[in-house]
Parts: sequence; C-alpha cells; structure tokens
Amino acid sequence: MDIQTYMHELGRAARAASREMARADTLTKNTALHAIADAIDAATDALLEANAEDVAAALADGLAPAMIDRLTLNEKTIATMSEGLRQIATLPDPVGEMGGFAYRPSGIQLGKMRVPLGVIGIIYEARPNVTADAAGLCLKAGNAVILRGGSEAIRSNRAIADCVSAGLEQAGLPATAVQVVETTDRAAVGQLITMPEYVDVIVPRGGKGLIARISAEARVPVIKHLDGNCHTYVDVDADLVKALSICDNAKTQRYGTCNTMETLLVNAVVAAEFLPQICAIYLDKGVELRGDDTVRALVGADRVAAATEDDWFTEYAAPILALKVVDGLDSAIAHINHYGSHHTDVIVTENYTSARRFLREVDSSSVMVNASSRFADGFEYGLGAEIGISTDKIHARGPVGLLGLTSEKWIVLGDGQIRV
Amino acid sequence: MDIQTYMHELGRAARAASREMARADTLTKNTALHAIADAIDAATDALLEANAEDVAAALADGLAPAMIDRLTLNEKTIATMSEGLRQIATLPDPVGEMGGFAYRPSGIQLGKMRVPLGVIGIIYEARPNVTADAAGLCLKAGNAVILRGGSEAIRSNRAIADCVSAGLEQAGLPATAVQVVETTDRAAVGQLITMPEYVDVIVPRGGKGLIARISAEARVPVIKHLDGNCHTYVDVDADLVKALSICDNAKTQRYGTCNTMETLLVNAVVAAEFLPQICAIYLDKGVELRGDDTVRALVGADRVAAATEDDWFTEYAAPILALKVVDGLDSAIAHINHYGSHHTDVIVTENYTSARRFLREVDSSSVMVNASSRFADGFEYGLGAEIGISTDKIHARGPVGLLGLTSEKWIVLGDGQIRV
Repeated sequence: MDIQTYMHELGRAARAASREMARADTLTKNTALHAIADAIDAATDALLEANAEDVAAALADGLAPAMIDRLTLNEKTIATMSEGLRQIATLPDPVGEMGGFAYRPSGIQLGKMRVPLGVIGIIYEARPNVTADAAGLCLKAGNAVILRGGSEAIRSNRAIADCVSAGLEQAGLPATAVQVVETTDRAAVGQLITMPEYVDVIVPRGGKGLIARISAEARVPVIKHLDGNCHTYVDVDADLVKALSICDNAKTQRYGTCNTMETLLVNAVVAAEFLPQICAIYLDKGVELRGDDTVRALVGADRVAAATEDDWFTEYAAPILALKVVDGLDSAIAHINHYGSHHTDVIVTENYTSARRFLREVDSSSVMVNASSRFADGFEYGLGAEIGISTDKIHARGPVGLLGLTSEKWIVLGDGQIRV
Repeated sequence: MDIQTYMHELGRAARAASREMARADTLTKNTALHAIADAIDAATDALLEANAEDVAAALADGLAPAMIDRLTLNEKTIATMSEGLRQIATLPDPVGEMGGFAYRPSGIQLGKMRVPLGVIGIIYEARPNVTADAAGLCLKAGNAVILRGGSEAIRSNRAIADCVSAGLEQAGLPATAVQVVETTDRAAVGQLITMPEYVDVIVPRGGKGLIARISAEARVPVIKHLDGNCHTYVDVDADLVKALSICDNAKTQRYGTCNTMETLLVNAVVAAEFLPQICAIYLDKGVELRGDDTVRALVGADRVAAATEDDWFTEYAAPILALKVVDGLDSAIAHINHYGSHHTDVIVTENYTSARRFLREVDSSSVMVNASSRFADGFEYGLGAEIGISTDKIHARGPVGLLGLTSEKWIVLGDGQIRV
C-alpha cells in the first residue's frame, strides 16, 4: 500500500472513531484510561524489550546522547506513564459541559456546550512517553488521535499502542480512536498534515525547524509551540530580595525547559545594587553571562561576555543568560515584545501601576508579577497535564490541556420561536 | 513598487499600529468609532459618487444583478453603516477583561486576560458596507486590520477608508490601524495570506471557491465560513403546530442566507400527517421541492421532484428544499453529520431525551431545539455584530463577534513564588 492510501485509511478510521468518542460517556472514557494504564503496567517487560531494540538501533546510528536519553524507558518512566493516565482519569470531563444560558429578546435561550475537536494529529520526536500522554489527553477530551512519533521510537510506540488498543477495546471504545503511524517513511507526515477531511488539528511537538516546516506545509490548523525566549524584568520598584530568588529560580532551576528565563532586564536605577549580587549566584552555578556594556561595567568585563544582537533573540536552553540594563518600564516592554517569543515574561515590582501596565502591554501567553517564569506549565496551572504550550494566539494560548483539545458549540433552546 | 513590497509595507505598518491599538483605552476606541461614523455621514455625497463610478464600471463589465445589488450604496445603506459603527461603540470592550483568578497550591494566583489578536486580514467580495463593519469590529477589539475588498468596489472602499483614517486620527489613534489594499491586483491576496510575520489571522468572506482557495494557500490561521447546509428534523414527538411554523420560517423567511434550512428531515411516524401540510405551504410560496420516494408518495410525484444524492449536500441559497423521511433520531443525526456543513441544525420535539441527544450528538456550530435556524446570527445571539459565521472548530465557531477577534493570555500574580 502506498503512503497516501495508508494515511487516508488511518484518517478514515480516525474520523469514524471520533464520532463514537464524542458520544462516549465519562465513565467509559475513564474505564479506558485505567485499562490502558493497567495494560502498560502488565506489559512493562515487553515495553522495555521493544525500547531496548530502539535504543540499540539509535546507538548504532550514532544518535546524540540527549536524544538517547529521551528515547530510553525504564521501569520508573513506564510507571510514570501509567500513573499519568490514571491522573487524566481523575480530571473533570470537559465534553458536554454547558453554560451561559440566557434569554434573548426573541425568547430563545442561548448557551454553549463544550465539544471535542474531532481528530487530532500529533507529530513528535522520539519520546515514547508522549505516546501515552497524548493518547490519554485526546481520549479524555473525546477525540480520536493519530500519533506520529520519531522513527527511532517506532518499536516502543508500537508496543505502547498495543496497550492503548487493548484498553480501549476493553472499555468498549473503538481501538482506532488512537492510532500510531506504523511507518517511518517521512512522507507520512506530509500526508497527515494535508488531510483536512480527516484531521481537524495538528499538534507538533519538537524542534523549531520541524514546527516551522509543519506550519508552512499544513492544510489544517496547527497548535504550535515555537521557542521559549522568556524574560524577567527587575523594576526600579522591585523588592530585591524577591528579585534575587525569582531570577535565580527562573534561570537555574532547570536549564532545558521552555519556561526558563533567557534574558534578564534590570532597571538602571537598581542595576548597580542588584546585578553584582545576582551575577555572583549565576557565576557560582556555572552560568555563562552575556551582557550589554553597562552590565559588563558593573559586573566586570572578565566575568560577562559582550552580548550581540543575536543573543536577545536566543533561547539558549542551556546555562547561558543574556543581561541588559534598561532605563525603565517602557524600554523593558518594548524589548520583550520585540525580541521575545511571546511565551512567558515576568516583572518583579512592588509598584501597582507598573505591574498593571506590564500585564496589559506584554504580548505573551503568560505574563507574571513577582513569580518565577518556571511556573508556566500545565501541571502548575492545574490543567492536570498538557499536550504542549502554544505560542499561537488563535484557539489555545500557553499550556494546552484538555480544554485546548475541545471547542464549543452554540445551543439554542426554544419553544417554537421563529425569526420575524 | 511591486506587490510584495507594497503588501509588506502594509503589513509592517499594521503590525506597528496593532501595538498602539492593543494599548488604546475604551474611551479612545469609542471616540474613534463615533468620529468615523460622523465622517461617513458627512461624506455621504462623496461616497455615493465613488460608488456610482464603481457601479457604472461593474455594469459595463456585465456583473451579475445580485452582485450589482450588493455593490450599490444609497443614502440608507450609508446611514446603516454609520449607525452600525455607533452600535459597536456601545458594546462592552472585551480587551483587558480579566477573570478566573484562583490560588494554586504553589501560592501563585492564576487568571486570564482577554487580549487582541493583533493584525487581522479580511478578504471579501464587492460589498462596501463590509469595509466599515469589519473596520469597526476589529478596531473595537483592539486589532489592526488590512482590508481587501472585491476589486469592483475599489473606489467605494477607498472613499470609506478615507473616513476611517480621518476618524482614527481625530481620536489620536494610528490611521494605519485600518488599511485598505489600494490595488486590484489579485496577487495582493496571495501576499496577504502568506505574511505570518505581519498578519495573525485571515477572515475570508465570500464564495465557497474563494474560501477553499484561501484555506489551501494561507500560511496563517483562517477563520472561515464555508457553506450553510442547515437541517430541521421533525421528530416523532414534535408538536406539529410548532413544526409547521418553524419549518416555514426556516425555509421561507429569507432564501439567500446561510442559516436558511436546505433539507427537511421528517420522522416516518408523523410524515403522513406533517408533510402534506408543510409542503402545501412551500408550494404556495413557490418553493421547489425535491424529495425521496416516501416524500413523493405522500405529497405527490407531480409536486415533488426526485432528490439525488447531490441534493443532500447542497446549499441552494434559493427557493428549493430537499426533503427526506427518516426512521428515527439516529438516522436524522447520522444524515446531518454526514451531509451537513456543521453550520446550524434544528430538532423539533417535545421529548426530553431526544432533544438532549440531538444537542450532544449533532456536530454543528449551532444546534437548536424548537427554534428556527434563522436565529443563527450575531445580532440574534447578542454579539452586536458579526465579522462572519465560522464553520471551523478551532478558535471561533458559529457567529464571530468581538470575542472571536480576541484571544486570552494567562496572568500570574505572585508574591515572590519560585518553583521547587
């Protein structure tokens, strides 16, 4: 079978399954989630075996250590997968939620009902745990899903998919509600993103290059996460004790996450007092610093490299930080809106008006006052789990959980009303 | 200047203006709306003159009468335009609305704030009134907008754009917040829909062909309205008096609107009683009927033509109706989900469970019980005005008003919280 025919078959099956999933009641969906979790637990040995083959092949192919790390499963990560599915079962079911009903002058009563999106295509790198997470979230939100994981994880993904199918069937749901693309042919991605008749939305998870290419070529809406170039601005009215703690945490708690601070902006008035203190912390932790002339003058040109224009645009995802002194709130906001990636940005201030202006004027999916940017994720926001963090403005913005995998329709309750 | 350079200049100016618009306060935006309305009223003669030139050219080009009709302005339609802008000024400003703030276990307080989308590109046919409506809605929602109207209306659109610019400047807002594409070159559309760096979302308004082409070629999200193939299902438990009134109204109140019923489904048990009555009304009003065998047997093969498979898919937008007898609720829902366009569908029933199932299982942007599908529009829904009716599931579904032209961002209020 050629790739197009194969993908269209997956699409057709997903579309049919999505109608059944949309009707499925909460108990049935939760039963399926538990059954999948149990199947994964029971299949731990088989999963480890399949994964070991993937890892061996990846090592033979000379895959980078960080990718091998993400590819590798062990008993603990498998247990985390099944536990994640059981947690999704505890989340409130968004499907069918109704609200807002109000009478209109015509006499109709108008409200909204939350509904599944339909069929979701997820394209991700060689991280087998995403297969279980994404399947669980899509299932709970009443959708069918087609999963296209990195080819290096194909054996692991197939093994997980078997558990998912078994769990779905055990709960009386269609096994085709969750399908894993069984070919490593790259043309499959090209097909998946250009079948609007079968796929309602694409969620790509992976590198910036992958996501940019998918966005450019897709013929269906894409919920995309590009980069996380996050800022903290230490205002003239900042509590510098809070600022030290927040700036330390935002940069050094984890270096590789998308909500990690990449540029620190400091108000000129407090720069001489604040910068030497915070930079001492960073240097102590081995963070490479790149600053503008003022920063270098205050902290020492031997300790802070000269930042270039490129640095302001960069998501390092590494122990590197760009630092800049700004003359006030307007400059800070302008810098963030120009150089940032509209992900998560923070002001540290005790000033009511500055906080309010920053919240309103910074155009990012999460804007914070006096808190670490590291809070910007689905678990911290109480979404239970996230399918990704959207840097788009359309549909879903910021951490995307169950709600982002649903839509709303209008409901009109009448008593024979006609339009006059 | 070539088209690409020209469109990029519009885009750059729009992006810059969008930042100012996002900051603009409610009073300033309302002042601008009133100033534009006043400018339009004052320029009535100039608008009529420009429009007369457009109409003369269109007549010379042999444009269809229906298109000439939509192109033509008169004193009343111009007054309706300015009145529409004043009405938009009375709508609540959605921008900056905050809510949902709740404490998370970490101590952060998490909520959301409504924000503009940024830059909106609107592509529409030769209907000059859309220029004022769309400008007003986008402006109130804090966006910048680039308007690309049908080339037959170019003189009218330029004249309206002059009023819009004057009003914006009078209120101290950037005149470039609303820009009309000043060329009739079709390549301008191709540029407009492929500048993600300058345009955040495209709203196409027009024929199915235009919208399908834009969706296929766009590199930015599209809020699209495809066809309105709306159904009414008369259930076994329908109150037939209500059913007669609703089915009459849904089909005959206006034939050309997208929320007009195109297919009538009748439960087999009530078909013999109901169909002859409703068909008498339709035939009396000159509606051409196309039915399945059962309908033709009940109403008369001389009065009802034989429907083909194509009829079930068709939005006639004309005094033509397809009719089918179905054996129950399941068949009705399956027919609607398969043949319909997910726009607006209605059940007439007194049965609680049937109503509830229809509302849940019909996958359309508006689903109604005992009301005419003609209610599905922005004014009837209290949105004040609509930029279009979305048949998409992503972002905005059904009538799109001010809210559909906005997004939400997450707001975190902290007191020095860091992630542990």
